[in-house]
Amino acid sequence: MRAAVLRNGRMVLRDDVPEPVPGPGQVLVGVKACGICGSDLHFAKHGNDMVKLSAEMTGLPGGDGAMRLDLSRDVYLGHEFSAEVLEAGPDTEAPAPGTIITSVPALLTSTGVEPIVYSNTTIGGYAERMLLSAPLLLTVPNGLDPRHAAFTEPMAVGLHAVNKSAISRGETALVLGCGPVGIAIIAALRHRGVEHIVAADFSLKRRELSQTMGAHETLDPAQGSPFEVATPAVVFEAVGMPGILNDVLRRAPAGARVVVAGVCMEPDTVVPFFGTAKEISVQFVFAYDFDEFGESLRAIAEGEIDVAPLITGEVDLAGVSAAFDDLAHPDQHCKVLVTP
Amino acid sequence: MRAAVLRNGRMVLRDDVPEPVPGPGQVLVGVKACGICGSDLHFAKHGNDMVKLSAEMTGLPGGDGAMRLDLSRDVYLGHEFSAEVLEAGPDTEAPAPGTIITSVPALLTSTGVEPIVYSNTTIGGYAERMLLSAPLLLTVPNGLDPRHAAFTEPMAVGLHAVNKSAISRGETALVLGCGPVGIAIIAALRHRGVEHIVAADFSLKRRELSQTMGAHETLDPAQGSPFEVATPAVVFEAVGMPGILNDVLRRAPAGARVVVAGVCMEPDTVVPFFGTAKEISVQFVFAYDFDEFGESLRAIAEGEIDVAPLITGEVDLAGVSAAFDDLAHPDQHCKVLVTP
Ligand SMILES: [Zn+2]
Ligand SMILES: [Zn+2]
Repeated sequence: MRAAVLRNGRMVLRDDVPEPVPGPGQVLVGVKACGICGSDLHFAKHGNDMVKLSAEMTGLPGGDGAMRLDLSRDVYLGHEFSAEVLEAGPDTEAPAPGTIITSVPALLTSTGVEPIVYSNTTIGGYAERMLLSAPLLLTVPNGLDPRHAAFTEPMAVGLHAVNKSAISRGETALVLGCGPVGIAIIAALRHRGVEHIVAADFSLKRRELSQTMGAHETLDPAQGSPFEVATPAVVFEAVGMPGILNDVLRRAPAGARVVVAGVCMEPDTVVPFFGTAKEISVQFVFAYDFDEFGESLRAIAEGEIDVAPLITGEVDLAGVSAAFDDLAHPDQHCKVLVTP
Repeated sequence: MRAAVLRNGRMVLRDDVPEPVPGPGQVLVGVKACGICGSDLHFAKHGNDMVKLSAEMTGLPGGDGAMRLDLSRDVYLGHEFSAEVLEAGPDTEAPAPGTIITSVPALLTSTGVEPIVYSNTTIGGYAERMLLSAPLLLTVPNGLDPRHAAFTEPMAVGLHAVNKSAISRGETALVLGCGPVGIAIIAALRHRGVEHIVAADFSLKRRELSQTMGAHETLDPAQGSPFEVATPAVVFEAVGMPGILNDVLRRAPAGARVVVAGVCMEPDTVVPFFGTAKEISVQFVFAYDFDEFGESLRAIAEGEIDVAPLITGEVDLAGVSAAFDDLAHPDQHCKVLVTP
């Protein structure tokens, strides 16, 4: 079957990927849509660094050096997917064939949990078909467009970041960076009823999109620091570039809670004293839990979060490589969907 | 009157400091004991950097550039004090002369709140007499030794750090660094009933003291990373040196809460990805609130926290300068008290 895979830092289309066969507890599904995530682009460019940093790190839930990857072999990507049930594995209860589902990006196997994110062996959403785990499937309700259901994962990231912040409705939120992560946070803040959401991005297009998704006020950092205008209780850092965190520590008001949702792989320099003098807290966030994933799907399916404006492109498997190139200039894009 | 003041980076004894005169709401007190704080030593050495960093920072509660200090003039220090009431200002209700009191280090004046920490004008605890504010005075109960009452402030720092961590009794705490701040944290953890307190320090003497104050287990980082032995839910960073924070991010278990109680004035390099991959939170802490200050005094006065083992030296005002030099090699010391 066909799949777009990462080979030597570039996405290439393969048509010789062996057909996946569902084992017990697994389900073969046909991918309907899969969003291209900023982390995929980052991995394509800096996969070596990520594997190296992972190896340096201890304390991961999956044990040490949790990222077991051989970058000299093809890597499957794609973790923001919706799909149609095709066939259940042996002795496996699953929704009827034809049912549209989504799932947290993880595959339960006889040897453990395989994340569906970067893998030499576990096929992701940039493929015609893939395996999922029956117990993890969520049926997409309300006849929701599968292209919209594919936003369950990225919008769950936003919900999780907002939950971790423990923000209350009356507190001001400042979102730095209105790429897909910042936008998901803005949508989640609005969903939680937060009454003052300020969004900052250099791109006019992104500022406009952030308003569509719920920001009450937008700022262009080229016109001056957002902290000259806003006095946020919670700052969401959704840029993920060196220098941002220290600028936040330097300028944020006393007692601010900073949620770091942007992924910065490079070493970064901070002056801890800025955090100390103002008793700032910094919560790094990454993923979400099952409840947040389910709430994300429900909010999209019930129209509480409208993800339609986020789709700025759509490609088939042959178009993935060009889409990755395009997204290197992300100002013009929010989310590009792959529809195999 | 006499006071030890900071002049050109060194503590010098003056005998020509004008006698302070209490205004309305103020009380003249005679200092009984004042602890020498690590931050005083740091300020003596790096005061210029601190003033510069303060000026770079916005968002402080006291307004921008909150540290208004002229380092070319004498600076009064000393914020960990107990004292005896001598005389109340005009129309001021205060405890009877002779009463032993302590206070948060702040003076209410007609123009605002003056911190009693580093000041060209507001006299601190390294003096024969100083001014305090009647509404802020706490009477020292139970006939508590005034030298022990002087620990109210540094022990409140520990209580505050522990409160901010929201640690529960069953969670493991790892305290990195057993100087006065680390020791105050250990005492507060024990006071809160935390059942597994691990303390790490290169100095044997400090490890012993941390055991006296409540640590269940001590580690020498020269023998290997504390994270190879402990799996803490909460890590208290009480070293305040560049490099520590990144090492904590790299090695701490997933979901760890890191409380940064050490004050690091230098720029520090971190790899944010370590925090991201493990969803670590970092809470910078600095001071305490009135309730924590009061609880600290009560806990010491009722013998729940025994501070006697922390006194490793005692000097008069003439000895302050030599004590500052001594404390540059802090392994042999915990707290040196100035008893004017
Ligand atoms: Zn993603
Ligand atoms: Zn102190």
